[in-house]
Amino acid sequence: LNSTINVLTAHQSIRKFKPDPITTDQLHAIIEAAQAASTSSFIQAYSIIHVSDPELRRKLAHLAGDQVYIEECPVFLVFCADLYRLKVATEIHGLEMKGEYMEAFIIATVDTALAAQNAIVAAESMGLGGVYIGGIRNNPEEISRLLELPEKVYPVFGMCLGKPNHAPGKKPRLPLAAVLKENRYTTEEDVLLLQQYDETIHNYYKDRTGGQRLESWTGQMAHRMSKEIRLHMRSFLEKQGFGFK
Amino acid sequence: LNSTINVLTAHQSIRKFKPDPITTDQLHAIIEAAQAASTSSFIQAYSIIHVSDPELRRKLAHLAGDQVYIEECPVFLVFCADLYRLKVATEIHGLEMKGEYMEAFIIATVDTALAAQNAIVAAESMGLGGVYIGGIRNNPEEISRLLELPEKVYPVFGMCLGKPNHAPGKKPRLPLAAVLKENRYTTEEDVLLLQQYDETIHNYYKDRTGGQRLESWTGQMAHRMSKEIRLHMRSFLEKQGFGFK
Repeated sequence: LNSTINVLTAHQSIRKFKPDPITTDQLHAIIEAAQAASTSSFIQAYSIIHVSDPELRRKLAHLAGDQVYIEECPVFLVFCADLYRLKVATEIHGLEMKGEYMEAFIIATVDTALAAQNAIVAAESMGLGGVYIGGIRNNPEEISRLLELPEKVYPVFGMCLGKPNHAPGKKPRLPLAAVLKENRYTTEEDVLLLQQYDETIHNYYKDRTGGQRLESWTGQMAHRMSKEIRLHMRSFLEKQGFGFK
Repeated sequence: LNSTINVLTAHQSIRKFKPDPITTDQLHAIIEAAQAASTSSFIQAYSIIHVSDPELRRKLAHLAGDQVYIEECPVFLVFCADLYRLKVATEIHGLEMKGEYMEAFIIATVDTALAAQNAIVAAESMGLGGVYIGGIRNNPEEISRLLELPEKVYPVFGMCLGKPNHAPGKKPRLPLAAVLKENRYTTEEDVLLLQQYDETIHNYYKDRTGGQRLESWTGQMAHRMSKEIRLHMRSFLEKQGFGFK
């Protein structure tokens, strides 16, 4: 369709990188693209920590579940939802910041995600690649301490960026009809669509592993979603000054 | 730099649209681009409701705070965080879905935002424009009822799309140095950077309104953030089957 659509649909999660550095100009172009994303009521409720210190990288890689590519990638960013800057802005005007409620948490989290998605798309358009690191939420308290995050700031995810040194392939997504609905949320076809998709994913893994890996999407999801993970998040976020009323 | 960076950095929120329709092929390309975004552990925790029914549009426009462009835009989408599909997938395998905790809420909300950002970028790359509609959260319970959202699905935001009929301009973003930090969250320069930015925004509004509108960013934010809004969100989300432990 056009080169941007090609960039978007070619996305793969890159975890192996060539040693080529990302230049400061490239990094700044990536961050400026991130900042150009929509932001709720112009609040721009995020900050991005560029982690260049190797010792700090090593610690974060370990705390995020021993993901070595956090150490190895040319650029590692931590995307933080940030209401602290808004507190500073509010107090400049002698007013009291109110940020401890669910809607403020949603706005800051969404703002951060929109900016991050622009960042990875910008990077990919330059021939770079990357991966989101949700594992940053494995140990958010320790990571926040290492990054000296003030109150009302939390690390939503990390992002590795660099020149790809592998092509892991695109995993087929859910059928369009499962995701795009018209006028109301229909459920009638759900099971049929998921069965079709299970077959797609089954064949995808089978082809890629010479028949070694036989998995369905619903099987993966059943395994994943029958467990609760990161149950520390609520109390961490409250300690960090977020609220959920 | 390249055409994708140009698309990303040219973003403006479009609220006035030419009557030209968006074709089904275009809409499907937009949704496929959305689906290509990263997703936490491949869970793809979102659904997108394309609202084509004029009467339903009229109701949503009213419920979202009388935003007429929701009625007028060629395509209106509601992006929903969706753990319901994962419940179906989990139950197919005879397991019990566990989705009532903070981390599941974050994952679903972030997944939805990443997909939506790809959607608007894809649309913009085709010469279309759009705007996010956070006002969908003004009356989420009524809107969920109208869209027949099942349990464990919530409308995160809407999105108007169509051919732009105005060019409202790009609002200058925060200085890069305020948003991008290295190795730790520095606060020393915050007030200085915000003062510089206030001047930028002051001049931006002054120039655009012939001196009529004199506002600073911190002033806007102080006004916005000293109030709590949408305090119904927590109880709405709990009724909808989300949990926050």
